[in-house]
Order: sequence, then structure tokens, then C-alpha cells
Amino acid sequence: VMSASSTKRLAVLEGDGIGPEIMSVTLSVLEEVSRHFQIPFKFEKALFGGAAIDECGDPFPAQTQKLCLESDAVLLACIGGYKWDSLPRKQRPETGLLGLRKSLQLFANLRPAKVFDQLIDSSTLKPEVLKGVDLVVVRELTGDVYFGEPKGISLQNSKRIGYNNMIYSEDEVERIGRVAFEVARLRNRRLCSVDKSNVLDVSQLWREVIVSLSKEYPDIELSHMYVDNAAMQLVRNPRQFDTIVTGNLFGDILSDEASMLVGSLGMLPSASLGKPNSPGVFEPVHGSAPDIAGQDKANPLACILSAAMMLKYQFQLDEASHAVERAVYRVLEKGYRTSDIMSPGKTLVGCKEMGEQVLKQLQLIQ
Amino acid sequence: VMSASSTKRLAVLEGDGIGPEIMSVTLSVLEEVSRHFQIPFKFEKALFGGAAIDECGDPFPAQTQKLCLESDAVLLACIGGYKWDSLPRKQRPETGLLGLRKSLQLFANLRPAKVFDQLIDSSTLKPEVLKGVDLVVVRELTGDVYFGEPKGISLQNSKRIGYNNMIYSEDEVERIGRVAFEVARLRNRRLCSVDKSNVLDVSQLWREVIVSLSKEYPDIELSHMYVDNAAMQLVRNPRQFDTIVTGNLFGDILSDEASMLVGSLGMLPSASLGKPNSPGVFEPVHGSAPDIAGQDKANPLACILSAAMMLKYQFQLDEASHAVERAVYRVLEKGYRTSDIMSPGKTLVGCKEMGEQVLKQLQLIQ
Ligand SMILES: CC(C)[C@H](C(=O)O)[C@@H](O)C(=O)O
Ligand SMILES: CC(C)[C@H](C(=O)O)[C@@H](O)C(=O)O
Repeated sequence: VMSASSTKRLAVLEGDGIGPEIMSVTLSVLEEVSRHFQIPFKFEKALFGGAAIDECGDPFPAQTQKLCLESDAVLLACIGGYKWDSLPRKQRPETGLLGLRKSLQLFANLRPAKVFDQLIDSSTLKPEVLKGVDLVVVRELTGDVYFGEPKGISLQNSKRIGYNNMIYSEDEVERIGRVAFEVARLRNRRLCSVDKSNVLDVSQLWREVIVSLSKEYPDIELSHMYVDNAAMQLVRNPRQFDTIVTGNLFGDILSDEASMLVGSLGMLPSASLGKPNSPGVFEPVHGSAPDIAGQDKANPLACILSAAMMLKYQFQLDEASHAVERAVYRVLEKGYRTSDIMSPGKTLVGCKEMGEQVLKQLQLIQ
Repeated sequence: VMSASSTKRLAVLEGDGIGPEIMSVTLSVLEEVSRHFQIPFKFEKALFGGAAIDECGDPFPAQTQKLCLESDAVLLACIGGYKWDSLPRKQRPETGLLGLRKSLQLFANLRPAKVFDQLIDSSTLKPEVLKGVDLVVVRELTGDVYFGEPKGISLQNSKRIGYNNMIYSEDEVERIGRVAFEVARLRNRRLCSVDKSNVLDVSQLWREVIVSLSKEYPDIELSHMYVDNAAMQLVRNPRQFDTIVTGNLFGDILSDEASMLVGSLGMLPSASLGKPNSPGVFEPVHGSAPDIAGQDKANPLACILSAAMMLKYQFQLDEASHAVERAVYRVLEKGYRTSDIMSPGKTLVGCKEMGEQVLKQLQLIQ
């Protein structure tokens, strides 16, 4: 058990749909972690996403931004819903997400895809292909065609053109490259950089920077792959990957594809990191599932695992982080399943009971 | 049997690696088609890819370009190899491919992914997910970030930046949209347009143009999907798709991913089309497999199926096209397999014998 430490201020963004339910369960898990490992947390809630649009007309209100910037880490559940889908882009929940990333300078998104033996049958891929899959996609999150200028829709010879600039500076590539090499070092020391350097200048620069950075990491085995091939290899032989690093757009596509290996979105956490000691955002990969909101049916495990990533990546509390992961693992072993991961012979539980089972396992851990 | 028609001039680009072997088999299949359906072909070979680099220092020499432009259609086997991988981009085989697409204005790339029942076990996905999968990706091929200007690598505040412009004009979107709606009409009348309009202006224009075009195709059911979700859905439930239309970059990624559904790259044809009556390019999806080149081990079926696409899409010879497809189908049913698609209990054959078996089946077809 670790010694007492200073209070960690956590901004808590419940968001929309199933967000409040899964966050409530996650906070009780963190409270148990707090007791067990003597880590004082202070939770402060704020509006974000659709809920914030309804209240203030802005998916990422100034007050929420202030709270996030002053916190030690941000826990986010999930946002969005049909209700806000037809609003103009500026007022959509996703725009809040992009704003949050920009304002906290969250340039590194970590998306692990680790296959749980207990759930291996729930994927559409064959178990023999999935056995042992344990990869992480390190996605650059504040650059690329997402934010590049010039961009817009305008007239050329009285016809409309739409355009966005796919752009990276060498500093941006180096910064995300360092995170990726460091992550690979904590894992199996293999890094695959994904680009489209046979066609794109921006990818050519990307590759050059990664290659020259690799000289500082001689212990990491670096390889390169074109993005089209990577999309193929993730399905063909996902075990070949350890750590993948790529740009914002390719990372968006590949990390979602990789998530399918695990079979259920309900099991996938993520971490978005900024500069050292600045607050990161920890959130499940799944959406807000408006159709089952408020019915105690949601799977809280991805949100709980995101909290475990926070313990590890934000606070270097490896022991506490492992304890949470182990508790989740044991609950699966005991056969508890929410409906999204249910299979014959298992025990169907709701969101709250799933949380209680995790708490119980956590209490058993010395 | 159709009536005699004017001679069709086919430019034949064998390319590199296994290219000459699979093309030789494909031409004998076309000769049989010619006899059977009374369609006179004239084959004219030209250098392309690595072979052309070795001979003329240019992957797409002027002479080859001239021949292609004067032909009625272009048959291409495959290009590239380790040998040319370290050359500067301008002299690489792929650059020849991009040049060919540009000069013939091949704006529409059709990539079917149809699961063969006989090979359903060769995919990494479960058979129950694959059963009945029959989709086609219609990829825009001459625009997008592949060719957008400005592009390059330059200095900004003494740091390098790399950039490419992701750009579409409404004319370009409308042109590929029309092809896609027409293709969907020949199939199950469902079209899914893939974009990233929640983030990109260029995608917003894309979606607007597709939506307004859809008014001319009231018989086609149009849907939209974000590219990250599409990458997920192709693995999760590929049967939901009939025709997919998307831009050059997203199409590059998604069509390669979709190819994994079929289990073997050796079975996948493609067609790249320009304006009506201008020559298209028909080529297998796979690469040049330098490691097995010259060993009579290559699978010629994708190249043969590409020739079938030529008969259908370039010459509207539906009957001849179906005959070739049926012959391939029967050869699989009879259990013949090249090594890439071999499985226990089947009959292993080389490239040439596979070709002979297809010929035999073709001769049996009335
Ligand atoms: C909602 C959208 C803007 C976002 C993205 O593309 O980054 C999402 O797909 C994600 O991956 O978090
Ligand atoms: C080789 C490369 C330039 C090409 C592309 O990206 O278009 C290839 O991946 C393809 O899909 O034909």
C-alpha cells in the first residue's frame, strides 16, 4: 500500500446517454481505490456534450474548460445522441470533444486493443487469430487534416470546392513519436509507424522524423507500414502488432478497426495525454448508446478501465492501476456479463451490479 | 453467342514479379472467349512498372502511355518489388500507376469483395459473418489528397512542415457519385457514402453533393457513414453493405480492408474506369509477389476475374463476362487450388494448370 499523497482533483464529465450511469459506477470504484491505496481524490462534475448544449448552447462551456484546465485529470464518460445530430457542426457534441482536445493540448491518444480470453468468442474474427492479441494504437490527436489550415468550402470558377490541409510539422511528429517510443518501451519494444509515404509528402516527412528519432531508441524495433496495408494486416494477423503510431486521421480509422478485434466496444478504454503533468482525458471508446440510457443495462467496464489508465499514465500509480484491471479480469472470469457481452451459460447483470462485482474483487485484492 | 464485332485493341501490361505468368494465363482465357463469343481481340504488350524503370528509367514511358491511350482497354497484371523500393518516389513503380490513372483519367475504381462459399474458411473472419457477403467499393481515383495542391515539404520558422491538400470539387464528387448510383442500380440498390463530415469541410461538401444527386436516383436507398465507423462495420457486419462510395484516400484504406473478407488477395479483381468509351484499366488487387515469381505458383484467378470485369464494364459483354466468372467458380467447386488458397483435401495446382482448368470449364459452357 502506497503512502498518502496530495489530493488529486478530477474533473468528471458524465456527458450524455449512458454516461451518468457508467460514471457513477466508475467513481465508486475510484473511491475504493482511494481507501485502499490512500490516494485522496476530489471529484468535480461539469457539463459537457449534448447536456451542455441543452443547458448553455455550447458543447464545451467556458466553465467546464476552466475546471478541466485546473484539474489534475479529466474523466469523461461519453457524449452525443440523435437529438443533437442535426445541429450545425459548431453546436454538435463532437465539436466539444475537439475543443477539449485542443484546449488541453491532448496530442497523444492511446487506444489499447487487448483481447480478453473470456470474451474471445464475441469478436467476428476467429479465436485462433485473436488469441494473445495485445496492441496499442498511439494516435496523434491535435494536428493533421483535422485542424490544418487553409480549410473551408468556397467557389472556384463558380463551382464549389471543399478542402482541408493535411499537415504536420516536424515538431509535432517528433512529439508524438517520443510518446510512442516510450509506450513501446513499456511493452514489447516493437513500434510500427503507419503512413502513406508512397503518395503523401506529409507522410514522407512523418517517416523521416520517426526514422531519425529512432536513433535515440536503439532498443525499440521500428517498422513502417502503409495505411492501406495496416487496415488489411489488422484483420489478417493482428498478433504481429505491439505498438502502432500514426497521425490523427489514420489513427481514427485504425483504432476503431482494431477495437473490433476485442469484440465489444464496451471493453475499450482510452487515454488522451498532453504535456507531462498537464491533465489528460480518460474515456471509454464507446458512444452514449441513447437507446439503452437510464435502463441500468450499460457496460461500465470500459469506463472503469479508462480510470485504470488514468491511474497509470497520469499518476504513475501502477499498483492501483493493475489492481483495477485485475478486478475487471476476475469479474469476467467469474462469468458476470452485461447484455452487450452476454453469452450462453454466463450471468447477466446490469450496470450497477457489474460495478458492485468489480468493487468486491477490488476489496479482495491485498 | 453474340455476333461478330470490331476488333478490340487491348494494351497488355505484364508488369513485374508474377505479372507475366498470370497475364499469360489470362490472355489464353481471353482467346477462348474470343473464339467462343466471336469477339476479336488484338493484344499489344508494353513495359510498365519496375520492368519499365529497368529498361527506360521511367515506370510509365511515353510509348506505353501512347499505346494505352489508343487502346480500347488496358489489362494490367501487377507491379513493384523490393528491387525498386529504395528509389526516389518519382522513379518508383507506384508512381507509374498514379501516372496511368491520371493520364487515362480513371476517376472510378471498382473493387468488388464477394465471398466465395468454397473459400469461406480461408478468411480470418468467422464463416457465419461472411456467408453471402457481396459488396463493391466505388473509390474516386483521381482527386483528393493524392493529387491536391499545394503540397510539399517546406520550412516554417526554420522547421520543416509536410502538407497535402485534401480537396474535392462538386463536379468531381458528382461524377463519381453518378458511377456509384449506377453501379448500385445494377446490384441491390443500396448505396452507402463514406466520409468524415463531422470533422472535414471537404467531406461536408461531399455529403451535400451526394445527397442532392440522390434525388435523381429515387430507386436507390442512400445512407451515410463516417469512415472510422465504416472501418469498424466492415469487420463487425460486412453483410450490411451493397455498394460503398468514397474518396480516394478512404477508398484506398477501406477497399484493402474489405479485401480481407474474401480471405485471399489472389481472388480479387478491380476495374478503373474513365469517361464512357475511353479505355479503363483492369487489374488484380494483389501485388507482384517477387518471392514466388517464375515458379509457376501464382494464383491467376484475380487477373482472370479482372478480364471478366473488362468484358462487363468496358464492353458490356455481360454474357462473356458471366461465362468467365462461372468457369472460375466451377474450378473452385472442383477443388483446384493454388498454394495461396490451398486447404486440406483439395487439389494443389500451379498457375498454368489453374489456367487450363479455367479454359476447360469455359469450353464446357454453351
Ligand atoms: C467524434 C469525432 C470527432 C472523433 C474523431 O474523429 O476524432 C471520434 O471519431 C474519435 O475517434 O474520438
Ligand atoms: C501503390 C499506391 C499508390 C496505390 C494507392 O494508394 O492508390 C495502391 O495502394 C492502390 O490502392 O492501388
